[in-house]
Amino acid sequence: MTNCEKIDRPNSEYMDSILGQRFDVLDHGFIRVIDYMGDDNAVIQAARVSYGKGTKAVNEDRGLIRYLMRHYHTTPFEMCEIKLHVKLPVFVARQWIRHRTANVNEYSARYSILDGEFYLPQPEQMMFQSTDNKQGRQGVMPPEMSSVLLRVLKEDATRAYRNYEHMTYNNPDDPNDPDNVNFARELARINLPTSIYTQWYWKTDLHNLLHFLRLRADSHAQFEIRQYAETISDIIGGWVPLVREAAEDYLFSGVQLSRMELMLVREIIKSPALHDAEVFDHMGRNCGMSGREIAALRSKLQLP
Amino acid sequence: MTNCEKIDRPNSEYMDSILGQRFDVLDHGFIRVIDYMGDDNAVIQAARVSYGKGTKAVNEDRGLIRYLMRHYHTTPFEMCEIKLHVKLPVFVARQWIRHRTANVNEYSARYSILDGEFYLPQPEQMMFQSTDNKQGRQGVMPPEMSSVLLRVLKEDATRAYRNYEHMTYNNPDDPNDPDNVNFARELARINLPTSIYTQWYWKTDLHNLLHFLRLRADSHAQFEIRQYAETISDIIGGWVPLVREAAEDYLFSGVQLSRMELMLVREIIKSPALHDAEVFDHMGRNCGMSGREIAALRSKLQLP
Amino acid sequence: MTNCEKIDRPNSEYMDSILGQRFDVLDHGFIRVIDYMGDDNAVIQAARVSYGKGTKAVNEDRGLIRYLMRHYHTTPFEMCEIKLHVKLPVFVARQWIRHRTANVNEYSARYSILDGEFYLPQPEQMMFQSTDNKQGRQGVMPPEMSSVLLRVLKEDATRAYRNYEHMTYNNPDDPNDPDNVNFARELARINLPTSIYTQWYWKTDLHNLLHFLRLRADSHAQFEIRQYAETISDIIGGWVPLVREAAEDYLFSGVQLSRMELMLVREIIKSPALHDAEVFDHMGRNCGMSGREIAALRSKLQLP
Amino acid sequence: MTNCEKIDRPNSEYMDSILGQRFDVLDHGFIRVIDYMGDDNAVIQAARVSYGKGTKAVNEDRGLIRYLMRHYHTTPFEMCEIKLHVKLPVFVARQWIRHRTANVNEYSARYSILDGEFYLPQPEQMMFQSTDNKQGRQGVMPPEMSSVLLRVLKEDATRAYRNYEHMTYNNPDDPNDPDNVNFARELARINLPTSIYTQWYWKTDLHNLLHFLRLRADSHAQFEIRQYAETISDIIGGWVPLVREAAEDYLFSGVQLSRMELMLVREIIKSPALHDAEVFDHMGRNCGMSGREIAALRSKLQLP
Repeated sequence: MTNCEKIDRPNSEYMDSILGQRFDVLDHGFIRVIDYMGDDNAVIQAARVSYGKGTKAVNEDRGLIRYLMRHYHTTPFEMCEIKLHVKLPVFVARQWIRHRTANVNEYSARYSILDGEFYLPQPEQMMFQSTDNKQGRQGVMPPEMSSVLLRVLKEDATRAYRNYEHMTYNNPDDPNDPDNVNFARELARINLPTSIYTQWYWKTDLHNLLHFLRLRADSHAQFEIRQYAETISDIIGGWVPLVREAAEDYLFSGVQLSRMELMLVREIIKSPALHDAEVFDHMGRNCGMSGREIAALRSKLQLP
Repeated sequence: MTNCEKIDRPNSEYMDSILGQRFDVLDHGFIRVIDYMGDDNAVIQAARVSYGKGTKAVNEDRGLIRYLMRHYHTTPFEMCEIKLHVKLPVFVARQWIRHRTANVNEYSARYSILDGEFYLPQPEQMMFQSTDNKQGRQGVMPPEMSSVLLRVLKEDATRAYRNYEHMTYNNPDDPNDPDNVNFARELARINLPTSIYTQWYWKTDLHNLLHFLRLRADSHAQFEIRQYAETISDIIGGWVPLVREAAEDYLFSGVQLSRMELMLVREIIKSPALHDAEVFDHMGRNCGMSGREIAALRSKLQLP
Repeated sequence: MTNCEKIDRPNSEYMDSILGQRFDVLDHGFIRVIDYMGDDNAVIQAARVSYGKGTKAVNEDRGLIRYLMRHYHTTPFEMCEIKLHVKLPVFVARQWIRHRTANVNEYSARYSILDGEFYLPQPEQMMFQSTDNKQGRQGVMPPEMSSVLLRVLKEDATRAYRNYEHMTYNNPDDPNDPDNVNFARELARINLPTSIYTQWYWKTDLHNLLHFLRLRADSHAQFEIRQYAETISDIIGGWVPLVREAAEDYLFSGVQLSRMELMLVREIIKSPALHDAEVFDHMGRNCGMSGREIAALRSKLQLP
Repeated sequence: MTNCEKIDRPNSEYMDSILGQRFDVLDHGFIRVIDYMGDDNAVIQAARVSYGKGTKAVNEDRGLIRYLMRHYHTTPFEMCEIKLHVKLPVFVARQWIRHRTANVNEYSARYSILDGEFYLPQPEQMMFQSTDNKQGRQGVMPPEMSSVLLRVLKEDATRAYRNYEHMTYNNPDDPNDPDNVNFARELARINLPTSIYTQWYWKTDLHNLLHFLRLRADSHAQFEIRQYAETISDIIGGWVPLVREAAEDYLFSGVQLSRMELMLVREIIKSPALHDAEVFDHMGRNCGMSGREIAALRSKLQLP
């Protein structure tokens, strides 16, 4: 294992070809890959250190990566790293930053003046409060309604930014310029809505990135952060295709079955009686499941 | 929500009744609960901060905890904390410490002399290298074989410790004691096998503890660390019974189904033909599953 | 060391007396202690596990805590934990959350309606952009100027909130109420400025809390977050008085001297010539210090 | 700032020239750089994102890096990453792993057979237990003494390894080989001393690496881990020379002065009387310093 000869730096042709390139997200946002470390091979290499001489049997790369993913052997995935430059609205940044195992350098509004760019949803994203999912949206608004609301959002943001500009105005060449206010930036910015765009460098390892994607590319995540997650998800498809495929099969498109769900699945396979919705429901309740859980299981299993 | 009146410190009667008590583990080890923070209620309280005024509907504590567990809303579980005093063999400590989100203070063998206590497996734990699971044991040895091996383990440890004692001997009252060697402790201890016992204070939050238990109380974990995990698992059953029950149902005794497994489960429910092992196997391979995965799924579903 | 008898739960009388009590911060914010784990003694107890039998010499509690603090032995301080309920403006929350080693549950504006409370600085905090410190404020504004700006801040916040209320309005009892808009909360809230108050439960260990205080109670931190840090700092003075005192002496009121600064300090002690500002400055530059660093050192040493 | 054109991947010529190369450490250990991300420039780039348009004044790279280091602006240093392959004794690995913000894949002795390589100190490292520093060594042993001890260390390790080999022996080609024991590897290895070598891949960011070096290249760290830290320290001198230089000046060769020490330094500069050791000592005690602290300060200031 200890081959200690000179090696070349691992690189990904796909990543090298897109470095610095802007992937547009939402109306003014973007994602740019700034740097990366490792590739599918780096995951395998790290796993092989653990297995040492015992590893000969696991001789197929794709199989090994799928094995690691399936069995929650997460540390080899931590051996890859990615650094992104992201432009995003503040309310998205507030959700994103909750992923703590990452490195961040954000544009400082104490130090510098923010640009006047604000997120405005597309009309087809202007939806009502969901009744099912208390933290979601549901049903596109009629155009006449959404255009009124969009006007409000735009006017409030514009007015707040215009006032921000006036309050922070300072002409360095003319201290007597009557428009000079020079209000402290760290205070003037508190007037700005969370739809304003900020920027940051964000760096994380592949394991934590997959976890981020699992939560933020999910249908329960807010639409806006999902757009970023999906863009990143596409990028890693080019970077670590074997890992991306395994994550799709085992993490993203898989499901967790509870103890009770597993019991019911075993039963319905054995017993045709359970195909009857009422019997199924009854047995689910006997297992201690709530109505909501039973409905969720029916949907997982695509029962009519 | 902002009821700002004086409150009493939350406490758990069960925990208060066992604080400091020694739970024996292995031949010389133990677990003692030193302190804790929060209980089932603290999880609910934290979740309710998130839901704010919208929370009225979710009015049942047990239901809320199960909902959080089922939907990977993990942050409320981080609001409970536990501090343990643990005595454990060094080779177990090396596995345990890999759980990084925890606080640790370990006995320092640079500073102090280690006690001469070593882990010796019980005869029924003296097993052969597993052929199935490359990192496990399998099949109890015949007694005459295990007693020879146990003698070797015991003699090597005893000799190493005797030499450690000689090398570090120093009579503070008599600098001329001919037995004084006073070899630096940080070096003398490198002679000791990893079966020697060490001690530490270990503190972590409930979410990370559940993750620890999921991995370390699992049948793939080494038997020795599993004994500690199971003892802790019993303790949290007394401390946070609702969380413990939900973890059992959704984390520990549940299973993850991959995209392909889910497809197969849906099919076997619909189509009796799949009850035939060969057809099932064939279809599994068509979905891209390996033979190992198909066998694992059959076992999950308890197919004959 | 292994006294395994039943113990009582460690508690702090001071903390028990203030649990749940509201400490006001800024115009609408507060800090409430919800729970805690450990006290000065817990730090000592953890340190003693490390020292084992070798510990007899270090027999004085205060001395031991000061020794640990002085020598960056930080792990014993991780053995204490505190849980706070905090109400704070969003722009403060954005700075606060950068401290990653902590647990957080925040009020969800996707789920619930935010209250209409906004931070408005006191007139004496209405300052100009600092010229020295690019990320600070400096010099109180004339009252006629600050009252104009405060009016702008108030009007923009009020208008944004009124629009937020209208957009999210939904009368559950009357689906035909003509004022029903029921715009998704997760979108309506993007209209609100970062001066709006949010709430969270925040839990961290004492080591990370001291680090938080070192950065956020510092004069370079923004005034608003400093008010929270100072309130917490007072609270821990009652909770862990020995740790608080040691932190003051070794962390907060101490200074770091660079290699060059140390060289200069040694020289000025030896050589009276260096009392001359020009000679001092000259020698500083010879050591490779910038003008800014030399000035900072003069100020640290209180040289005229 | 948002120049979104195609960029080339940042690389370090020095690092590219040493990738994979073995740097020997101790008798059988090594460090090999496997991969890296970023360089001095990446630190600057990240800092500039924070400063945004306000950054023009800070126009010199070296100056900016030194500024960041001096003011504890640590996040830009997190934007560089390094991945090492390390071979090291288990007792060193146990100290190293305490640095939690890192990614690790270690050789698994449950899965594979360990090599029979053990750390044996050089005769000049065979020292007595320190009397000053309870966790250190002091004073080289007479050769006749150290050679006896080295023989003990060698014999015990050799015997333990021979027994490990016997216990794990299994001839896959001949199940009837009378030497087959095939004891489970996860148990057989508990017989081996912590002087045995293991291997791992270790990956961390530059900020955490500097923290690691600060503690582990320090004279209070155990000699053996210090050898690794010093080798890494040399490597980063070639990789990020500006960061390395700044770390030397501000982190490694600087000192922290406590509140009391700072007071005393100010006094001794002002008042020649304090050059008298007794007066200095007296005043130190008045400031609340212990005798040990006063002695440490005298030594920092190189007072006679």
